[in-house]
Amino acid sequence: MDYYQNFRAQLEAKEKEQNKRSIKVYEPIDAVRVKRNNQEFIMMASNNYLGLTHDLRVQQAAKYAVEQYGTGSGGARLTSGTFPLFNELELGIADFKHTEQALVFNTGYMANVGTITALMNKNSIIISDELNHASIIDGCRLSGARIERYNHKDIEHAEHILKNYKSSHKMIITDGVFSMDGDIAPLDKLYELGKEYNALLMVDDAHSTGVLGNGRGTAHHFGLTDVDVQLGTLSKALGSVGGYVAGRKELIEYLVNYSRSFIFSTALSPADIGAALEALTIVKNEPLVVEQLNENTAYMANKLQSMGIECDDETPIFPIIVGDNERALSLAYELELRGIIITAIRPPTVPVGESRLRMTVTAAHSQEQLDYVANTLRDLLVDMNI
Amino acid sequence: MDYYQNFRAQLEAKEKEQNKRSIKVYEPIDAVRVKRNNQEFIMMASNNYLGLTHDLRVQQAAKYAVEQYGTGSGGARLTSGTFPLFNELELGIADFKHTEQALVFNTGYMANVGTITALMNKNSIIISDELNHASIIDGCRLSGARIERYNHKDIEHAEHILKNYKSSHKMIITDGVFSMDGDIAPLDKLYELGKEYNALLMVDDAHSTGVLGNGRGTAHHFGLTDVDVQLGTLSKALGSVGGYVAGRKELIEYLVNYSRSFIFSTALSPADIGAALEALTIVKNEPLVVEQLNENTAYMANKLQSMGIECDDETPIFPIIVGDNERALSLAYELELRGIIITAIRPPTVPVGESRLRMTVTAAHSQEQLDYVANTLRDLLVDMNI
Repeated sequence: MDYYQNFRAQLEAKEKEQNKRSIKVYEPIDAVRVKRNNQEFIMMASNNYLGLTHDLRVQQAAKYAVEQYGTGSGGARLTSGTFPLFNELELGIADFKHTEQALVFNTGYMANVGTITALMNKNSIIISDELNHASIIDGCRLSGARIERYNHKDIEHAEHILKNYKSSHKMIITDGVFSMDGDIAPLDKLYELGKEYNALLMVDDAHSTGVLGNGRGTAHHFGLTDVDVQLGTLSKALGSVGGYVAGRKELIEYLVNYSRSFIFSTALSPADIGAALEALTIVKNEPLVVEQLNENTAYMANKLQSMGIECDDETPIFPIIVGDNERALSLAYELELRGIIITAIRPPTVPVGESRLRMTVTAAHSQEQLDYVANTLRDLLVDMNI
Repeated sequence: MDYYQNFRAQLEAKEKEQNKRSIKVYEPIDAVRVKRNNQEFIMMASNNYLGLTHDLRVQQAAKYAVEQYGTGSGGARLTSGTFPLFNELELGIADFKHTEQALVFNTGYMANVGTITALMNKNSIIISDELNHASIIDGCRLSGARIERYNHKDIEHAEHILKNYKSSHKMIITDGVFSMDGDIAPLDKLYELGKEYNALLMVDDAHSTGVLGNGRGTAHHFGLTDVDVQLGTLSKALGSVGGYVAGRKELIEYLVNYSRSFIFSTALSPADIGAALEALTIVKNEPLVVEQLNENTAYMANKLQSMGIECDDETPIFPIIVGDNERALSLAYELELRGIIITAIRPPTVPVGESRLRMTVTAAHSQEQLDYVANTLRDLLVDMNI
């Protein structure tokens, strides 16, 4: 076995399918503009939904935390890594989400993996939307539970599965907003299923925190108060890095004691926690920030619809499905030539044959920028016969 | 099934075994002192081996990165998250480690999980030291590979296993420095085994980066130049947060394309990458920093040995194994009363019956602080009959 020859062969196969990834550097100018080789681009591919990475108050909070507590936490939360900002942030998240407690993880990936593996085991059943995020899938696999996937947002299918596992230890898991499609999970109906069939219910608010329900996430959007596990991230609308779980006291204490990705990892840095805390405070106290995002989303949706491009305005994620990898890459390339970054999304991130451009709108985009992007996109779609 | 009743029952069981965790807040004063309720403590439980979290240059670099690029990266590395400091850091790590390339992950946990699952599959065999870190174990489990654990540092046992899998796709994995015991893996001998039996070799330098081999890690310590996968963290000696993998170009490109924890996670923040880059530069250019750590380690080892406390000076991690959870907790409590933080480490972090205090020395501790800690520890061990 020549391991390196094997790596090369697999990379060449990716190349042939026009599916090889390489890392591109962009230099941020502000929350919505980047440059490369002195050319400027409008960034339409980030999850910086509220533009808070470049809010001066958030930046100031990060810098102050560095001065106060240093650049790293030096250890895991349970040994030496919990500085005071952590408490404030966790209390703040719980208050914001109307839950008893909250717990911060290093990333959304680790929150999903650590939570699912702590709650589920080889005797459990997980009922999971087929389009759930990769980190949910990895958590489900690592837990050893039996995984039953239901068709995307298909409540009847989910119920059909639940009927087979009446007496089991089980959890329904769904993304709140699906990251690559931008649609919203039917959490109200899943909640009813959870109650009827005695399953825990977990929602991943990665793309709904700061976006749906006045920024409070998917449960709040549907007026639900006691979804068991409300997971989210600090790295998207909250302008920092990290993940969290909000829920009842017992759940959080249980995760502190049983979640391996929580226990066995050095805590986030003071800068990250300071930034997230300030961003959360802004989202809580200034409803206009989330409203601006909603306005920009509606503006873009109207604009695209008026041009005959099918889309809706549920969330700031606009998928432009073009089919094969080649067309997705060409469209992204042509947009880039015109000063717009919208990344081509290919398998395994989306199913084969559903390659797409995933455009995101943020609160920080100007109407002028949105107009330019929509017009350019329309022209290219016409030119390229998509 | 009452899920919350179940959480409570499991937490009560932990409580009964004196094994329940709860989070304690410490307010950092500098790299080695913290306070709580206005009492000051010497921190002997962090992995901040070089004290760089509070180096003014590292703090300045973090703050400057926040000003330049904002508080978050806004997206995954492959979509929108790679700002210029990432490249500089990855080039810097590769140069420092004498490898072709390097790749940064969000945490050491994610680096292990993402790398092992990308490299190994259900047809692979993993030969793993029984005391490897939890994140290696989780990566091995998630990969679906057959896991064969060898007795701690037992080369003959590892070879015995390898003989059974001559023609297989396989990898030997070891911690470089074992986090809870502070001993060094026999990487030179594992390297020979890897060559003889055609296995990939992976070393986790979480606790060796900035510590062994002039800070370059375990491979360098043994004079080895081509260990396949050299993984490490940015969160310990490098004073920030994150993980990395260094190795050949094909390996890194392969991980960029196949490592799910890399692909599906928002990148670290500018502050974190800026801090790690500056810390790396210091470790590279100022050998005195690592030498100071070695001196402090030797000083503490001599001091303890002269008092009849068994230990060695291989690494700055000093395990004080006391056996049961109760004794470990009492000793930690008594130390805390005397102004010293050394966390009690209990199962599942260490095997049942091997609960311990894990003391770490850093380059930032003064001789006076080390004297006070050693004397206090000796008195308590005598008093408590340990």
